[in-house]
Amino acid sequence: MRIVVDAFGGDNSPTAAVKGSIDFLNLHSDLGVEIVLSGDEVMLKQELAKLNCSSDKLTIHHAPDVISCHDQPSIAVKQKADSSMMQAINLVANKQADAVVSSGNTGALLIGSLLKIKRISGIKRPALCPIMPTTNGSQVLLIDGGANVDCTSEQLVQFAIMGSKYMAAVNNIAEPRVALISNGTEDEKGNEVVKETNTLLKTMPISFVGNCECRDILSGNYDVCVCDGFVGNAILKSIEGAVSTFGAVLKQELMSNFTSKLGALIIRKSLKRLKKRFDYKEVGGAPLLGVNGGVIKAHGSSDERAFYNAIMQAYKFVSGNVVDKISDSLANIEE
Amino acid sequence: MRIVVDAFGGDNSPTAAVKGSIDFLNLHSDLGVEIVLSGDEVMLKQELAKLNCSSDKLTIHHAPDVISCHDQPSIAVKQKADSSMMQAINLVANKQADAVVSSGNTGALLIGSLLKIKRISGIKRPALCPIMPTTNGSQVLLIDGGANVDCTSEQLVQFAIMGSKYMAAVNNIAEPRVALISNGTEDEKGNEVVKETNTLLKTMPISFVGNCECRDILSGNYDVCVCDGFVGNAILKSIEGAVSTFGAVLKQELMSNFTSKLGALIIRKSLKRLKKRFDYKEVGGAPLLGVNGGVIKAHGSSDERAFYNAIMQAYKFVSGNVVDKISDSLANIEE
Repeated sequence: MRIVVDAFGGDNSPTAAVKGSIDFLNLHSDLGVEIVLSGDEVMLKQELAKLNCSSDKLTIHHAPDVISCHDQPSIAVKQKADSSMMQAINLVANKQADAVVSSGNTGALLIGSLLKIKRISGIKRPALCPIMPTTNGSQVLLIDGGANVDCTSEQLVQFAIMGSKYMAAVNNIAEPRVALISNGTEDEKGNEVVKETNTLLKTMPISFVGNCECRDILSGNYDVCVCDGFVGNAILKSIEGAVSTFGAVLKQELMSNFTSKLGALIIRKSLKRLKKRFDYKEVGGAPLLGVNGGVIKAHGSSDERAFYNAIMQAYKFVSGNVVDKISDSLANIEE
Repeated sequence: MRIVVDAFGGDNSPTAAVKGSIDFLNLHSDLGVEIVLSGDEVMLKQELAKLNCSSDKLTIHHAPDVISCHDQPSIAVKQKADSSMMQAINLVANKQADAVVSSGNTGALLIGSLLKIKRISGIKRPALCPIMPTTNGSQVLLIDGGANVDCTSEQLVQFAIMGSKYMAAVNNIAEPRVALISNGTEDEKGNEVVKETNTLLKTMPISFVGNCECRDILSGNYDVCVCDGFVGNAILKSIEGAVSTFGAVLKQELMSNFTSKLGALIIRKSLKRLKKRFDYKEVGGAPLLGVNGGVIKAHGSSDERAFYNAIMQAYKFVSGNVVDKISDSLANIEE
């Protein structure tokens, strides 16, 4: 299996990508994974020399250009064909690699993958799927996290199937519990598209557990939560905003006087563990589901640990045959 | 001015409603407010005797029945005409009171108000507007918080105007900053309805500051955030879920060993202040905007302090002529 890692475009490029790749190869030499680093060859060789590391399972694919987070996605994918990201995507499109991991420009990765790797036959729209930690330590996949702002019920049904296949294969869950995001748990709750989707999901070969309210997404009661990308974006950003507001206010209160500062000093380890439990780096990247290959979007500020985890996700995605399983599942439904 | 308080249907009925009303009258005898308590006369008299309080500005409107939080709203508003809530709504509908405050069944309050008090002429759909505390201590009004799950751009524009008029009158803000919830701050971001709404809002006589991402709702940069009720519900529940998850995990970590327990003891005052800053009771209720009178929905678990604040909101709503201002504003736009 070959996994291509886009070594540029993230906040900690290329160090984090290089270190994460080497760590993965060193720790999992038994898995038969080769890693291709996509990016400027001179810079990558310098980085490997600086880190004093190498692996015979690691190769470099030269790509001199970089798509930055400020680039307009639709323009960048056309004008920057020699970028580390587009070259990495091309390797998957041409079947020279099985999956790509990138911490670069999200929009460019989406558009580039759709353009080059293309959709799985029958899939209307691919979806980006952030994975979040729940209160009980499990993970929940949100599909769609923001790629498609207007969705039909047919698309939402496909999201449910793709999310279920991913969590079964990658997180090793026998029957992923799939829920539909709505404004109430009762079947009759929701806007028109959601109500239609609820009816359709009952007839699908997945473990559909009904509607789910947003307050329960992180409860650990669901493995997959389905919504359109506009709502998915609202959920993700609301959670992010609430956690950061809560954290900021907690800090203000702890720094407000001598006693509370002393207390903060004593509980610093607890606060550190708290932070770790909400840490994206421990969870990994967001898979782009519905395209004809593995695409894992790692967080823009990914460090080596985040890259390591995202590469592991890509490995499980490929070895679990997620693309074939999604494709087979659609074929069965259409029969 | 007469404000009718639905004394039943909430978690702490009728004590919280009665105490909050008495507190308001005692502290603000100069405002010329009369309060009518709606509910079972015998029980309310007993409650007043038990609390050993009275006021010549306080009267009781007998209503023997109660709509509970388990009642199906559309059925309850028809079958429970003698309930404390429906009787309270009727007083506003018949102009015997200027505003109603209720901590009862939200759906019944919405449907009942729409049915009896009716819409302001020209308003397509009334909206329920939760008010949240921001990081910098200001408040932000979310419109719609969940009453209308499918909205047109015309409805969203009306929401923006209503929210602006409310925050100007009740929160005393000269030019409320109105933002449109979207998946990016750029004008071209959003689903179809949101993009249409963005274009329309630029031509309206309000201070429209553009699109707002959900992570920034609590930033203090906005006074009014506009979205449809499906998205509004997703935002509110996501924030609620994130804060409760964060709080629960913080507690787990603090209780995990002796040292952290000691630290928790030392910072207990900070934690108390933290809790208070996220407390709905300090903020008040959610106004129902677009109906022909004042309707304030207080939280189901409102205590006397929450009732006191909700009555103050109702007072400001009426004295600020919010209904007339919304009505005038619509008339001007249509000219």
